[in-house]
Amino acid sequence: MNCPRHQSDPFWKIALEEAKIGFEEGGIPIGACLVYKDRVLGRGRNRRVQLGSVIRHGEMDCLENSGRYPPKVYHNAILYTTLSPCWMCTGAILLYGIKKVVIGENHNFKGPEEVLVQHGVEIIHLDDEECKRLLTSFIESNPELWFEDIGKITD
Amino acid sequence: MNCPRHQSDPFWKIALEEAKIGFEEGGIPIGACLVYKDRVLGRGRNRRVQLGSVIRHGEMDCLENSGRYPPKVYHNAILYTTLSPCWMCTGAILLYGIKKVVIGENHNFKGPEEVLVQHGVEIIHLDDEECKRLLTSFIESNPELWFEDIGKITD
Repeated sequence: MNCPRHQSDPFWKIALEEAKIGFEEGGIPIGACLVYKDRVLGRGRNRRVQLGSVIRHGEMDCLENSGRYPPKVYHNAILYTTLSPCWMCTGAILLYGIKKVVIGENHNFKGPEEVLVQHGVEIIHLDDEECKRLLTSFIESNPELWFEDIGKITD
Repeated sequence: MNCPRHQSDPFWKIALEEAKIGFEEGGIPIGACLVYKDRVLGRGRNRRVQLGSVIRHGEMDCLENSGRYPPKVYHNAILYTTLSPCWMCTGAILLYGIKKVVIGENHNFKGPEEVLVQHGVEIIHLDDEECKRLLTSFIESNPELWFEDIGKITD
C-alpha cells in the first residue's frame, strides 16, 4: 500500500514525531506508537544513544512506555513503527500476539516481515518518504552507530 | 544433554543465582548471564514485577545490563538462561547474532528453539532440576502473572 492519506492518521503522526524527537536528541530516528481501540497506549523511540540501551528499539521503547496490560489487549492492538521491525521487535510482536503492524518504510532496513505474516500478523506498508529520508540522512552521517543497532559486522 | 557437571559452571551458577534473586524479590524467577571469552559481560533477571517492565525478560535484562558492544562481540558471546527463550528473547539473540545459548530447562516453557537452530545457533540443554522446580513453584502460585509474561490469553 502506498497511500499518502496515511499522513493524516493521528497514530502515524505520533510514530513519526517520535522519530523526529529521536533525531533531534542525536539518537537513531525510529519511532513507534501502540494503539488499542483508537486510544494511544504508549509511544516510544529508539534510545540506544539516549539511554545507552541495546534493547530500546523504537517498538520496544514504545511497548515499555505503554506499561503492563493483560494479554488480550495486545491481541487487539495495532503497532505503528516508522521502520520495518528487526528480529528483536518481531519477536516482541509475536510474544504479545499483536495482530496488526503499520510500517513506515522498509527501504533503509527490512526485518523478517515474512515471519510476521506466517504468524498471521497483518502488515500495512506506508512507504512514507519523510521517515525514509530522516533515517537515510542519519545512517549516512552515523554508519557505525547504525550497524551497531542492527548487529551488523562491517570489518 | 543432561549433564550434572554443569552445576559447577560458574556462568551457569550466575544465571541460576539471578533467578533465585528474582524469586526472593517476588519476581518471575528467570535469570541469565552473557559471557565473552570466559568473561562475564553482564547478568540479569526477569523484572516484570520489580520494574513494571514488559521487555525485561531475563535474557533482555541481561543484555541491557551488559551494555553496548560492537556487533562482533555478540557473535562470539554465549548466553546462559535458566529458561528456553521466548519469541522476544529469540529475536534479540538473532538480532545480535549470538551463536551459542545454554538453556537451563524447557519444561515449564519452550520457546521457538527450532528458529534459533535454523539460524545456526548452537543450543545446549542443561535440563536443570533446580531452576525447573523454582519456576514451577512460582507458576503454581502466580498463574496470572506467568501468563501475562508469556502473552497467553486464558479466559
